[in-house]
Amino acid sequence: MSVESIAQSLTGLSIQPQAIVSHSTTNSPASWREALEGASSAPKSFELLKTLVYKPKTAKTATPVPLVIIAREGTEVISGAVGKKLGLKELRLGSEDLLTEFFSLDKNSLSPLALNEQTYPKVVTAIDSSIISSTALFAVRALSSSATIFLSGKDIYAYLKLLETQEALLQEVDFEALKVGADTLTVQPKAAPVKEKKEDAKIEGAIQIAIGIKKEVDFAGWYTNVLIKAEMMDYYNVSGCYILRPWSYSIWEVIQDWFNARIREMEVQNAYFPMFVSSKVLEREKDHIEGFSPEVAWVTRAGNSDLEEPIAVRPTSETVMYPYYAKWIKSHRDLPLKLNQWNNVVRWEFKNPQPFLRTREFLWQEGHTAFLTKAEADTEVREILELYRQVYEDLLAVPVIPGIKSEKEKFAGGLYTTTIEGFVPTTGRGIQAGTSHCLGQNFSRPEMFNIFVEDPNDPTGQGKVYVWQNSWGLSTRTIGVMVMIHGDNQGLVLPPRVASIQVIIVPCGITAKTSDESRKAINDKCEELSKSLKSVGVKAKADLREGYTPGFKFNDWEQKGVPLRLEIGPADLAKQQTLSVRRDTGTKAPLPLADLMASVPKLLDTIQADMFKRAQDTYFSRLREVTRWEDVVPTLEDKCVAVMPWCEEEACEDDIKERSARAAEPQDERAPSAGAKSLCIPFDQSKWPPIEPGKTKCTACGKDAKRWTMFGRSY
Amino acid sequence: MSVESIAQSLTGLSIQPQAIVSHSTTNSPASWREALEGASSAPKSFELLKTLVYKPKTAKTATPVPLVIIAREGTEVISGAVGKKLGLKELRLGSEDLLTEFFSLDKNSLSPLALNEQTYPKVVTAIDSSIISSTALFAVRALSSSATIFLSGKDIYAYLKLLETQEALLQEVDFEALKVGADTLTVQPKAAPVKEKKEDAKIEGAIQIAIGIKKEVDFAGWYTNVLIKAEMMDYYNVSGCYILRPWSYSIWEVIQDWFNARIREMEVQNAYFPMFVSSKVLEREKDHIEGFSPEVAWVTRAGNSDLEEPIAVRPTSETVMYPYYAKWIKSHRDLPLKLNQWNNVVRWEFKNPQPFLRTREFLWQEGHTAFLTKAEADTEVREILELYRQVYEDLLAVPVIPGIKSEKEKFAGGLYTTTIEGFVPTTGRGIQAGTSHCLGQNFSRPEMFNIFVEDPNDPTGQGKVYVWQNSWGLSTRTIGVMVMIHGDNQGLVLPPRVASIQVIIVPCGITAKTSDESRKAINDKCEELSKSLKSVGVKAKADLREGYTPGFKFNDWEQKGVPLRLEIGPADLAKQQTLSVRRDTGTKAPLPLADLMASVPKLLDTIQADMFKRAQDTYFSRLREVTRWEDVVPTLEDKCVAVMPWCEEEACEDDIKERSARAAEPQDERAPSAGAKSLCIPFDQSKWPPIEPGKTKCTACGKDAKRWTMFGRSY
Repeated sequence: MSVESIAQSLTGLSIQPQAIVSHSTTNSPASWREALEGASSAPKSFELLKTLVYKPKTAKTATPVPLVIIAREGTEVISGAVGKKLGLKELRLGSEDLLTEFFSLDKNSLSPLALNEQTYPKVVTAIDSSIISSTALFAVRALSSSATIFLSGKDIYAYLKLLETQEALLQEVDFEALKVGADTLTVQPKAAPVKEKKEDAKIEGAIQIAIGIKKEVDFAGWYTNVLIKAEMMDYYNVSGCYILRPWSYSIWEVIQDWFNARIREMEVQNAYFPMFVSSKVLEREKDHIEGFSPEVAWVTRAGNSDLEEPIAVRPTSETVMYPYYAKWIKSHRDLPLKLNQWNNVVRWEFKNPQPFLRTREFLWQEGHTAFLTKAEADTEVREILELYRQVYEDLLAVPVIPGIKSEKEKFAGGLYTTTIEGFVPTTGRGIQAGTSHCLGQNFSRPEMFNIFVEDPNDPTGQGKVYVWQNSWGLSTRTIGVMVMIHGDNQGLVLPPRVASIQVIIVPCGITAKTSDESRKAINDKCEELSKSLKSVGVKAKADLREGYTPGFKFNDWEQKGVPLRLEIGPADLAKQQTLSVRRDTGTKAPLPLADLMASVPKLLDTIQADMFKRAQDTYFSRLREVTRWEDVVPTLEDKCVAVMPWCEEEACEDDIKERSARAAEPQDERAPSAGAKSLCIPFDQSKWPPIEPGKTKCTACGKDAKRWTMFGRSY
Repeated sequence: MSVESIAQSLTGLSIQPQAIVSHSTTNSPASWREALEGASSAPKSFELLKTLVYKPKTAKTATPVPLVIIAREGTEVISGAVGKKLGLKELRLGSEDLLTEFFSLDKNSLSPLALNEQTYPKVVTAIDSSIISSTALFAVRALSSSATIFLSGKDIYAYLKLLETQEALLQEVDFEALKVGADTLTVQPKAAPVKEKKEDAKIEGAIQIAIGIKKEVDFAGWYTNVLIKAEMMDYYNVSGCYILRPWSYSIWEVIQDWFNARIREMEVQNAYFPMFVSSKVLEREKDHIEGFSPEVAWVTRAGNSDLEEPIAVRPTSETVMYPYYAKWIKSHRDLPLKLNQWNNVVRWEFKNPQPFLRTREFLWQEGHTAFLTKAEADTEVREILELYRQVYEDLLAVPVIPGIKSEKEKFAGGLYTTTIEGFVPTTGRGIQAGTSHCLGQNFSRPEMFNIFVEDPNDPTGQGKVYVWQNSWGLSTRTIGVMVMIHGDNQGLVLPPRVASIQVIIVPCGITAKTSDESRKAINDKCEELSKSLKSVGVKAKADLREGYTPGFKFNDWEQKGVPLRLEIGPADLAKQQTLSVRRDTGTKAPLPLADLMASVPKLLDTIQADMFKRAQDTYFSRLREVTRWEDVVPTLEDKCVAVMPWCEEEACEDDIKERSARAAEPQDERAPSAGAKSLCIPFDQSKWPPIEPGKTKCTACGKDAKRWTMFGRSY
């Protein structure tokens, strides 16, 4: 069909093309745009229109009904969210074959103009709702990769509307809203419909720089708002990836420094292994890779060359490292081998991403160690877990409960997994905060990586020992958990030990009437205090920015969570004191200047301790001893953790999850599952009455219980 | 064709299949292997045979002649090297269409059995030379994805030999050797053919753990050997990627700590941006991306889903970051913005990779800053360059010359590039050691990232200022340069300031006759010294390993480059002294134990200073003032840098490169170019006679010279 005949038939439908441009053959949006920008007959301003064809999952025997999506080139289409919206399962981008079959076109020639009375009824068509009333011009492929017709959004819509029938309605979808929804919303149980709730959540009379959404009402909205406004992160134009701005990255650096010093004492060495894994190596350990393969990102092309075999970006480094462990470990004298690396890993999750908690790329450390004996491996697993506990409790003031994971929840391919479990009271959900795995000999076995040494204790000299291995990791999730636990409706609240500014000093009481001399005296005092505090190890800063009111500065630093504010005005100077304001409690108290180098460090310690104590009290108050099944779901609905005597059988865990999900109130489809899973079996069982073997029964199934186990909803 | 009829025709050719196995349909090497391992009729031990089809570049009108490669599944086929070997240009993996066209098969059914009297003459066939005499069994696709025939390597070869004709010879290629060649060899000018040279390079009588290759004879072989034996790195099974082992990574950590402290003083903040870039954003700056696009790695698939658009792995982060700079910089009060990140980047080079110097993934820091004025940007460019100089000269004891790059050699898309240029005397090649770029307003311009603020100095309030930007980076290349400069035929030589062990203490003189008491006294003394030295800030270690001789330990630590060895035996103890041995010079001297806490730190400082001085003297001795063109090539052949009065015109630089390459001796094709390029225009011109404007002429073209410029071969 020539471009002229297409134009003619459009005119016949009372749709007037604004321009018709022939150009060189183009094979990508970029080259298409370039060709049009170089064409003198093209309009000065336009947007590219994209047409995507997806194939939903259908029975093999059924004829597929493709989904055709018409959107602005710049609009990201999240197939998962669209599928849910339209009730289509497992959307996959259609192959070239599919395009040929349905439209006799390739993707560089495809446009809504390929929909006609023959093709339209065979597909489902969805159009970006932002296009339908737009008078802006869109570049539309004239069923050719070398010809373009320019139509307004309205005209594209009119064209499709002419094809619509009772059986095949044109779907109008707000892709941007879907995307935002996917990114930021987690709906609370019992909540009213989203739209209404959003409005409720707005804080009345909140000034522009405040958070604007209440933590208790719209937690997910509050969370991302706090992160953005405190300059912890920013969204990024690749979905599921986020920018870690200095305000959050500096927290990660504090954790790195602290942890590096500790593991160095344990003689762990830092190293760096490549981020790429060949598919062959990645697939070596089947249980292990099964846990990751749906999320692996594959590099298939370099420059313009296809790679001979696709190469994976590491989702974790067991299979990257262990072939070399096999090479390096030649004798028991090479043991233990203890390496750690700080790196980025990629898990291309299709679930809702959430900054810090679930992101497609994230930063972490991963330790990988090998020992001659299980006893040594066991000891290290617990030593590392203890370090992780200290990172959370001592640095981040976030309480956690150490324990062991159930068989179902352990690391794929490992022997057992220990964990520290955190808890977000606002949502009543548990969160896995850090894990230390014993891999046993699962990766060292001959059919896996074959890592062995001659047994030094075998007198015949013939015996082999397959090494005992651990792996352990802590990620930037730490930061997200800290924000969720401590943040409030004024914004972030930072524990002093991880705050890159612990004390902000703000000059106050300066008015138009204040003499230059007095103004200078106040500013100088602020600067002097800041220096003195730094000299005793306090991270202090004087905010002497011109052109901002003290009130603005107060809000600004409160939002960013600085633990302590010192205000200095003329009256304070006269009295040789400063007004201190705690971020965590809002408590105000005058502090004598003379004593500041002692009182401020002490106050910071108090803030740190108080923040932890409050959070721990809350966590512990939400642990409910549950011995009757009928109390489980009400406990969850009460935003609590059900601690139950449990049989520790996998079937029982599956059953608990399913029964508790079924019994719970209906959830928004974007919310995490409402079912309970085992969070951990706490090491410290002394909080609960002793389990009597043969007498104490599993709350869920009535079989003999083994240990008290925490069950709850989780992230 | 059924599997039985294939087997029959093979038998007719006197080729006896060892087994014939039917199995479920398989669509990858992994699933094929799995199916065979699960089949009871398959042999216990076998290798998969892979058959790859490549399409060389041919004129559009010509019929393509595909290249069929038959290799072991585990053998990596580097298409670039194979192409060179066979004289075929730009090999690309053939499409499914091509396979269908030539063999009516898909890639999961293809095998050498698809070659017959019809197909063989239409293609070029190359077989892995390691297969042709092998009696091992190979799994060969029986022209089906669900049937496999097992043949010995010899039989596969025999089969193909029967098809060979005078016009279509069977090519036998050693793919492993090609790969090793590509990985490790750089041939010296004037060198004898590779094989002979390799033998010369072996050091006579060298014991097993020594380096074994002479630095002066086979530099590239020596370099990788030192790196492996000193446990600096290991090869990795993805070509062009290497493992940084703790011995090298710890050097990187020293550099990180030092540099972080310095840039913090400059108020640069660390942050982390995602590693993925959308193609749209990546392609925004055309000059810039032109420099990188042939090397960009593309993620096109996640799990089993194709991505809607391929996503690039960052080769550098200008285009990742600057859209957000545009967002964050709203007022001149947001300036300067100074961010830095420590991260991995990927440049999928097809040139010979070389550990640390040219690798597909590498670690670096990249700083990105924005200023209101050019003056501020200019100042920072030089401040950072000075820090880079200090990293090399003060930490790594590697002399560099700071200067500016020519227009041809500057950073793509930037305004100007400053550099510190290193020099490897053994090869006479310059090496770019670190660069600090002023980007000018090239990235902030409205048609690029549109980063501007209202001009605070414009009284009308209408003026806009597009920000002035810099970017600067230093990579793990630092480590490679250090190894090349300081290493010797005993192995690595580490400058004390970056050595993770500065002093190794080795107990000596212990024989079978030594009493337990005396043995203990010596060992205890070693341990005690190590502790005392640590207490004065010296990184000391006592090597008390059992079962190794002192000689073994000496070699071991020499190879790893530990700057100072202290030996302690019974005689030393009696005299209350220790024998010190310097790694850099081999100088031995007794040191009184009483004085050690003062003498050792001093000696380490001396070693550091001496290493730098020696290297700098050598570098400077290789800078030759060249004012006659006929002296240029002899200067290069003498492994020197030609410092010439230069006109600074790009055409002249092109000309110099070409003329000097033509005049030089023929090089092995794998060696870096023999032509000279401009290394830098040194800031300090005072080493050479003043350029007299209008009088001093360019050595190369005779036009007016502007500045003395270093020209040389380079990495």
